[in-house]
Amino acid sequence: MTATRLEELVTPALIVDIDAFDHNLSTMATALPGPRLRPHVKAHKCTQLANRQLAAGHHNFTCATIKEVEGMAAAGLGEDLLLANEVLDASRLGKLDARVTVAVDSLQTIEAAAKGGVKEILIDVNVGLPRCGCAPDNAGALAEMARSKGLVVRGVMGYEGHAVGLEDRSLRAELTAQAMELLLQAHTDVGGDVISAGATGTFDINTYANEIQAGSYALMDTAYAKLGLPFKQAVSVLATVISTSASGFAVANCGLKALGMDHGNPDIAGGGHVMIVSDEHITFIPETPVAVGDRIHVLPAHVDPTIAYHERMHLVRDGEVLETWEVDLRGW
Amino acid sequence: MTATRLEELVTPALIVDIDAFDHNLSTMATALPGPRLRPHVKAHKCTQLANRQLAAGHHNFTCATIKEVEGMAAAGLGEDLLLANEVLDASRLGKLDARVTVAVDSLQTIEAAAKGGVKEILIDVNVGLPRCGCAPDNAGALAEMARSKGLVVRGVMGYEGHAVGLEDRSLRAELTAQAMELLLQAHTDVGGDVISAGATGTFDINTYANEIQAGSYALMDTAYAKLGLPFKQAVSVLATVISTSASGFAVANCGLKALGMDHGNPDIAGGGHVMIVSDEHITFIPETPVAVGDRIHVLPAHVDPTIAYHERMHLVRDGEVLETWEVDLRGW
Repeated sequence: MTATRLEELVTPALIVDIDAFDHNLSTMATALPGPRLRPHVKAHKCTQLANRQLAAGHHNFTCATIKEVEGMAAAGLGEDLLLANEVLDASRLGKLDARVTVAVDSLQTIEAAAKGGVKEILIDVNVGLPRCGCAPDNAGALAEMARSKGLVVRGVMGYEGHAVGLEDRSLRAELTAQAMELLLQAHTDVGGDVISAGATGTFDINTYANEIQAGSYALMDTAYAKLGLPFKQAVSVLATVISTSASGFAVANCGLKALGMDHGNPDIAGGGHVMIVSDEHITFIPETPVAVGDRIHVLPAHVDPTIAYHERMHLVRDGEVLETWEVDLRGW
Repeated sequence: MTATRLEELVTPALIVDIDAFDHNLSTMATALPGPRLRPHVKAHKCTQLANRQLAAGHHNFTCATIKEVEGMAAAGLGEDLLLANEVLDASRLGKLDARVTVAVDSLQTIEAAAKGGVKEILIDVNVGLPRCGCAPDNAGALAEMARSKGLVVRGVMGYEGHAVGLEDRSLRAELTAQAMELLLQAHTDVGGDVISAGATGTFDINTYANEIQAGSYALMDTAYAKLGLPFKQAVSVLATVISTSASGFAVANCGLKALGMDHGNPDIAGGGHVMIVSDEHITFIPETPVAVGDRIHVLPAHVDPTIAYHERMHLVRDGEVLETWEVDLRGW
């Protein structure tokens, strides 16, 4: 049996450059070895990819949805799973054969954890991003309330999401320091061993937390590429040029249903200007001429919502598909 | 067995208001009865929804992907399927037990159709949108080429995509007229019975084509809502408020992986200002106070890429889930 070549894949198809991916995993594992990193699976939604992160030394994982926690547990990756998100019905979590910790930021989410049979929680603290998390001053009282319900309070988490994407590194560092000051202050009131925070954009800046919830580093996207991080673009969407025009633009079969668009248009690998993206098309002005039937790599602006559109990802080296992994943590 | 209530659904969940949906189907079937409409399934990717369109009198359908054509054929909806898109490998289409017509705009796509065993084609004409389609002047020559390869040329298609979303109705009408002048001119060179064009935004403006490829009308979105069309918002994403803040914002569990974001932020049903959308969260300032555990309906800005994120849609009347349909035409 001969291996599948890139040219044989049905397009659009999600492609992972194995060498870039391996580089990213080893770079991160060197910077944040073992439990210093709690890889966030929301970025890739793939238990086979998580298995590679495990092989790189990281045994504890972060999830964003109950479905992700369930899938990780079912895949035998349930040594220490953090659902870094609030839930009002934790009953599916309580049933799992895995160590599950859930974020709470209110009486209701504490009660939901207790009622659902979850045993351990983190107090989620708002450190500046307008999203979940209690006010830092309330963290201690919430911890006490959680303990009164029989829950084990493992510590705190706080996401400096307003800082992680800033291109100016010194500003990113300044806002991270301010955010983590709030988190550490809350931690003194809460107690516990865990101070969880961070993302790919602050992996080497956030020296305050004792574990970093980075996910994008493994595959990367064009938004994070602007930050000068030591990670390489590993993921792309392979597309086929299906039409060309005498006026200079070309069209490939990779559209809005193959790309997360909240960070704007994707890039074309090797150059080119993207004009419009529609449901199943990308119209672009190529840097060098392309012909109908040529294949191009489209680089997503935001990796997480891109992956969530695809059923599988193909791991490729030198044009050969070496493995195909199911994106098995999609949905809710 | 009691019926499922909205409150029992795992969130985020795709909800269809049955009454609004029925209104949309009957309004369209009155305006464009039977074969005057060729519903575009890309907007909903659901064969059960397509079955309702069939029941409303429309037997011919438009698809954007080979997977959609395959799924429609497998569901017994293959009486007359148009793949309104170019493909370089038509072999999966040629195998189907269905009447399949494919769009072509080049020698390569004609050869692919013939090689793949597809028997019928439309000449796709560029009528102003920078996307697929041959130059109008080339349409006749392409038709001749297709016939020389043994293909039946059923006519022409041309998508006035640069016009369909314009809020100014007179401008929309003017650009549609200009686009359709090009299409009709190409049709005189090509021949055949079919002149296929249009969208929800031009369903009552495009009186030049003899069939309209509208899809969004069935479920609608906030972008099309701005056009003053006679269709109601039927689809929403049900979400649970998981966190509130003393500073006035609230957070619900509907994020970038539940919403197509290329048209910008969604709206909150009943009012409210959306601040940020992240992977699994929407942060908003509610118009009337909300509490943790409350459920809200989020109205997507663009229906097609929203649906493509969801495995199923729930049809609801008076808070009761009457049916659940699989979104079975996703992927490629």
